[in-house]
Amino acid sequence: MPIVKYITVTAPEPSLRDNSADIDRLKNALREKVSGHSLVVPFAQVSNVAAGFRQAKFSGTAVLNEACGHLELVDFVESAGPLAAMALDLGTTHLEASLLNLLDGKVLARANRQNSQIQFGDDVLSRIHYAARPGGLVNLYQLIIADINKLVLELAEQAGLRHNDVRALSVSGNPTMIHLFLKLDPYNICREPYIPVLNAPDLVPAVELGLNLHPAAPVFVLPSVGSYFGGDLISGILASGLDEQEQTCMLIDVGTNAEVVLGNKDWLIACAGAAGPALEGGVARMGMRAGPGAIEHIRIEPGSLVMEYETVGDEPACGICGSGIIDLVAALYLAEIIDLRGKFRLGSDNRLHQTEAGLSYTVVPASVAANGRAIELEQVDLDAMMRSKAAMYAILTTLVSQVGLSFADLDKIYVAGAFGRHIDPERAVTLGMLPDLPIATYVPIGNSSLAGAEKVLLSKRHRERCGRIMQKITYIELNVNQEFMMRFSGAKFIPHTDRSLFPTVPTFDS
Amino acid sequence: MPIVKYITVTAPEPSLRDNSADIDRLKNALREKVSGHSLVVPFAQVSNVAAGFRQAKFSGTAVLNEACGHLELVDFVESAGPLAAMALDLGTTHLEASLLNLLDGKVLARANRQNSQIQFGDDVLSRIHYAARPGGLVNLYQLIIADINKLVLELAEQAGLRHNDVRALSVSGNPTMIHLFLKLDPYNICREPYIPVLNAPDLVPAVELGLNLHPAAPVFVLPSVGSYFGGDLISGILASGLDEQEQTCMLIDVGTNAEVVLGNKDWLIACAGAAGPALEGGVARMGMRAGPGAIEHIRIEPGSLVMEYETVGDEPACGICGSGIIDLVAALYLAEIIDLRGKFRLGSDNRLHQTEAGLSYTVVPASVAANGRAIELEQVDLDAMMRSKAAMYAILTTLVSQVGLSFADLDKIYVAGAFGRHIDPERAVTLGMLPDLPIATYVPIGNSSLAGAEKVLLSKRHRERCGRIMQKITYIELNVNQEFMMRFSGAKFIPHTDRSLFPTVPTFDS
Repeated sequence: MPIVKYITVTAPEPSLRDNSADIDRLKNALREKVSGHSLVVPFAQVSNVAAGFRQAKFSGTAVLNEACGHLELVDFVESAGPLAAMALDLGTTHLEASLLNLLDGKVLARANRQNSQIQFGDDVLSRIHYAARPGGLVNLYQLIIADINKLVLELAEQAGLRHNDVRALSVSGNPTMIHLFLKLDPYNICREPYIPVLNAPDLVPAVELGLNLHPAAPVFVLPSVGSYFGGDLISGILASGLDEQEQTCMLIDVGTNAEVVLGNKDWLIACAGAAGPALEGGVARMGMRAGPGAIEHIRIEPGSLVMEYETVGDEPACGICGSGIIDLVAALYLAEIIDLRGKFRLGSDNRLHQTEAGLSYTVVPASVAANGRAIELEQVDLDAMMRSKAAMYAILTTLVSQVGLSFADLDKIYVAGAFGRHIDPERAVTLGMLPDLPIATYVPIGNSSLAGAEKVLLSKRHRERCGRIMQKITYIELNVNQEFMMRFSGAKFIPHTDRSLFPTVPTFDS
Repeated sequence: MPIVKYITVTAPEPSLRDNSADIDRLKNALREKVSGHSLVVPFAQVSNVAAGFRQAKFSGTAVLNEACGHLELVDFVESAGPLAAMALDLGTTHLEASLLNLLDGKVLARANRQNSQIQFGDDVLSRIHYAARPGGLVNLYQLIIADINKLVLELAEQAGLRHNDVRALSVSGNPTMIHLFLKLDPYNICREPYIPVLNAPDLVPAVELGLNLHPAAPVFVLPSVGSYFGGDLISGILASGLDEQEQTCMLIDVGTNAEVVLGNKDWLIACAGAAGPALEGGVARMGMRAGPGAIEHIRIEPGSLVMEYETVGDEPACGICGSGIIDLVAALYLAEIIDLRGKFRLGSDNRLHQTEAGLSYTVVPASVAANGRAIELEQVDLDAMMRSKAAMYAILTTLVSQVGLSFADLDKIYVAGAFGRHIDPERAVTLGMLPDLPIATYVPIGNSSLAGAEKVLLSKRHRERCGRIMQKITYIELNVNQEFMMRFSGAKFIPHTDRSLFPTVPTFDS
């Protein structure tokens, strides 16, 4: 069943022969329709439920929330519209939300906005530090609640509803974001031995969080597995179906960290590592998210060195997003402008020029760039990119080898997020970031954090999967893993020190 | 189990090898001690529970509330004192409370106070009318919550505890008082077909009611059966054990109404009627509750007509309480000062004198009375008393005859409240108010409303009995009962028109 449901019911009218109380009358009429579940009316809703029941002349639609081992009767209306519920991907930088009609599973509206907490730190670590300052936690909490409330209004308006017609919320995010959302102190998340306050919050009514949905709307938070494995990744597993498949598959989610899960219906193993910043458009100066004007694809013709690029929305270029950087570095390699160590070859291209910091490559000259500032790739950016791609490949190989498999054993590799939507797997293979497998192995699955949040709203089976995934998953700590460090070193070349691993990638002499 | 319990637990300390979240760690450590019950941490308590758990270095006492089908984990303390919970008899005029230690069932403190709502009406009807005025309901609600909060402080102080050491509350009261306590509109309680908003409130945390106990303290409200059969009487059944006895017994509770229950472990039948005011000290001018200076016992020597009386606390007389009036009228009858119709015999005693309103009897002359005002029994008071006693007897006989029994079939008659504590059953039999049975049949059980409220705090068995009693009880509406009206007429004589019913009561010629 969905997390909230409607039940239409007609109760006998009160009389001297049947003078049971309003709430008892309604509970009795509902009893046979809820197959033995206990019914509880939360105190804050008693008055409203009884008034609605009388106003509707004892016939209409009861609104029931799922709760721990029972059902909550939270509203009664004469005639009910769509059963709207909101799914939220609570990202460190960005929030994405959808409004579903739980009656048919259709999307009623979509909205997104920046995370306003960003003014107090770009990443989770700086947020955790800020939260420790006097008033810091409350401030971050209030900012995120205000952001979400704006999304609620926006979604409701798009769907022609009022904010209190939104009757449930599911939230998928990393552990730090979830702590801030719940006004819980994230202090120990980043301190050894890395202990969150809680991984699996129980359902909480929206009003207790200051959320401007229906006050009794249940808020379901996707559970975390630990400080570095959040509900956003549980969402990814739900969305990809990794935990229910016969064949062993892999899920890659690149956000601030690269988070990777490997498994099938019998087992799941996961790890995370700092492979992200360069890949998510976090490279200094030129990096950006995949928004208007971001270069997302680049080709350089070997020999002529003619460059072509595409920007998001065909706007004048103002930066490069993650997929653009992967394309760019792969193209630079194939055009022999960089060598297998990821170093510029002096004199290989006249776009290369010397700066105080070393060699730099002009991707877009100032004269053509959107804001009159040239888009440059410096050696230091390239080095960061090489570390990211090496980390990514090392993470993948370490994880696969932990269970005695090789990449060839994988049926599918699901690639989540903006990274999955925009990258060209072939280019990532060229770089040696992703393993050299048939391109059809790679399946982009979009924003799986949001998709998982949508799933849990719609079905108890998916909500229960969360718990089973939590129980089943084994998490590998890479920071204390010797094998990972060795593999990381081997992967710091293009495509790799062991060229036999990448038979389809051309190699050049240094 | 009691409504709240302590469980001592020691969890393994967090480490890199065991970095589960604080709340998960605590839940895991508790799991084997709660035999399969689900554990939920209410959102408002998460932060506090986690902080307490850390502060106690992962070893101490968890506080668990019973909830619908699961347990709520609401607090964690390093070392726990008594497990204090408050029982409350929420009367229309008076509140009585006790503080129990749920660890051993012992009473830690007792307190009582007037119901401040009394300034807006003496009885439930006037409260219901006042509640319908703008702001009336909120005002009555706030008054009663303030009264209860004062009792909480008083009880806690007596026991050497803080207010938030009080971890549960049970409340027993009539349906109108319960509605006002829960800020629910009592409008329909007194209007045909007499429908309360609810009979059996689900558990509610104290903080939601504005109560100054521990914020997560569960508030258990004894359920009602209907608008005229409240949780106070369910309490009486719990306290007397009527619902668990092999032998058929009767319970009489005289408050504003006379409420009577008849039954045994197999069946329960109940009714209520307006027999109360005269018996509870509600007679005009001279009536009062059984407080200091109230005449509670009176003897008049037949022949010499010498009168002796006792007052509560041996204070100078300032009024007569219910038991005093019963004694007085019985004595007047035995001394032949009133006849079998309850009318003064002119010239029978020099305390009798004529007033504008008819004959009046001086119980205490002004010269001796506490406030210099004579205590008088007028014919109109006597008439009211006769109606009350007739109503009481008619109620009892109607109820017994409904199930084809006679009074001789009753094993015990439990008499609750101040009425039960103070009256002399022999005098009540003389008046024909109670049936002429061996005096040992009558068992005073004190404040059974409070006693029942105490029981439900201590054991799940008693909380579950409430639901079974609600299901089992049959309520007879006397206002539409022909038999009752006939019996009422027959009972308007002393002791009765059918003298064979009262073989031990002497009779006199008129």
